[in-house]
Amino acid sequence: MNGLKQKYMLTSEIAREIVNRAEEKAKELGVRVCIAVVDDGGNLLEFRRMTGAPILSIEIAQNKAYTSIAFGIPTGYWYDMIKDEPALLHGIVHTSRLVIFAGGLPIKLNGEIIGGIGVSGATAQQDEEIAKYAISIIENQR
Amino acid sequence: MNGLKQKYMLTSEIAREIVNRAEEKAKELGVRVCIAVVDDGGNLLEFRRMTGAPILSIEIAQNKAYTSIAFGIPTGYWYDMIKDEPALLHGIVHTSRLVIFAGGLPIKLNGEIIGGIGVSGATAQQDEEIAKYAISIIENQR
Amino acid sequence: MNGLKQKYMLTSEIAREIVNRAEEKAKELGVRVCIAVVDDGGNLLEFRRMTGAPILSIEIAQNKAYTSIAFGIPTGYWYDMIKDEPALLHGIVHTSRLVIFAGGLPIKLNGEIIGGIGVSGATAQQDEEIAKYAISIIENQR
Amino acid sequence: MNGLKQKYMLTSEIAREIVNRAEEKAKELGVRVCIAVVDDGGNLLEFRRMTGAPILSIEIAQNKAYTSIAFGIPTGYWYDMIKDEPALLHGIVHTSRLVIFAGGLPIKLNGEIIGGIGVSGATAQQDEEIAKYAISIIENQR
Repeated sequence: MNGLKQKYMLTSEIAREIVNRAEEKAKELGVRVCIAVVDDGGNLLEFRRMTGAPILSIEIAQNKAYTSIAFGIPTGYWYDMIKDEPALLHGIVHTSRLVIFAGGLPIKLNGEIIGGIGVSGATAQQDEEIAKYAISIIENQR
Repeated sequence: MNGLKQKYMLTSEIAREIVNRAEEKAKELGVRVCIAVVDDGGNLLEFRRMTGAPILSIEIAQNKAYTSIAFGIPTGYWYDMIKDEPALLHGIVHTSRLVIFAGGLPIKLNGEIIGGIGVSGATAQQDEEIAKYAISIIENQR
Repeated sequence: MNGLKQKYMLTSEIAREIVNRAEEKAKELGVRVCIAVVDDGGNLLEFRRMTGAPILSIEIAQNKAYTSIAFGIPTGYWYDMIKDEPALLHGIVHTSRLVIFAGGLPIKLNGEIIGGIGVSGATAQQDEEIAKYAISIIENQR
Repeated sequence: MNGLKQKYMLTSEIAREIVNRAEEKAKELGVRVCIAVVDDGGNLLEFRRMTGAPILSIEIAQNKAYTSIAFGIPTGYWYDMIKDEPALLHGIVHTSRLVIFAGGLPIKLNGEIIGGIGVSGATAQQDEEIAKYAISIIENQR
């Protein structure tokens, strides 16, 4: 149909598979995290708090997932992007639900954002490693 | 220990099992719902939005789960409890995160609240039926 | 000094005594409640959640105390005051922290509001009875 | 029971005892503070504002208590933890209710978090000293 585009969308089944893989990797690393997967609209699809993961991470994981789809880049890219722009460094960080540290990744297929993942509870680097491993299932399907 | 009480707590594994059972029942009923499980402090443990379930239900399911632990009764009891008390009917409904229709159930063990489930997306009665089926795994373990 | 007035203020000690008396009355009635005492500015002075009192009541008790000082009348008067004014009945109830059912009382001395108490967790009538008993210590000091 | 864990919980009586001890220590130090005790889910159990303690501290004390249970470490550890990670230093501080300066301590029993205390109104160091003294009653009971 003219003027309408088609897009891929995450299903609940894939969101769950992504969360399961994230947990698998977290266990391998010996850490306890919260994991959130959102769709391309930033709306929550699947969430898990591993037993003993920080309550503080419930919100952070969801915000990382949201930030990932809301700007289309890994949350870990943000700091480098704003660090030499003082107005952004002090200003944009107040944006609702924006997270500027690693652990959130957009989930892309053929270059289009189809969702996002956010992981929180370990170090930012481990969080990102977990997120990366979890969504590699999608990349492999390309 | 003097003055301290002991209580049971939900693990991530049980929360997931509860969500899996809720989805199983929802599929049997042919409906698509959001399912949230919180711990006894109202903090999210596990969440799922089935493919095609309403985005509006993301928040409602979580609020139903919260309400269940925050007052210790099924959310479906609220309306009957307040319908003849106009001050409550017009007033208490404004309490943050309070849901007064069916679909949220406290998860109890030996009479103590150990968590809550909230289901949203079908009729309130179906939401509750799904919630009931999902947590019967706990009752059976008593 | 010209133009300045003097007022009485609740101390922490009296706030605590009020909360203790509220708990005493709650135990006598066999109920478990949250109790909040605020100063004349609506700012929290003392709070208690009795073991097993509803988590939902944490917010409601504080809002009842706030409403009491913010309008200077018992929260239980509100519904009768607005019930025949549909615009108020449907509108003013959305005001932040306004509670329109019983359980909140202003604490007055010589006709001046010096603070407020809010009780939540039992029936609205019991909540108010507890609040009334608790603050009678002030009335007696008049 | 399979899959369920047991843990200790704070009662209202112990929360009050902790607050009483905090106030005792604050008086000894000649400072006026707000003191909040939350359960392991971050929900308020007991609160006191000493006469003359800053109104601003009402919220800070509660947030310190919340942060303590939500991440499981003293709030005073946060700054050292993030000071060399600029993305965290500028970013994570925007997390709801997160406090990154001293005065909040998790209350632990046998290594498990059973609640949290937050003290605010004096210097951060004094706040923490007060918190530490207050909860030593739990440690002593081990």
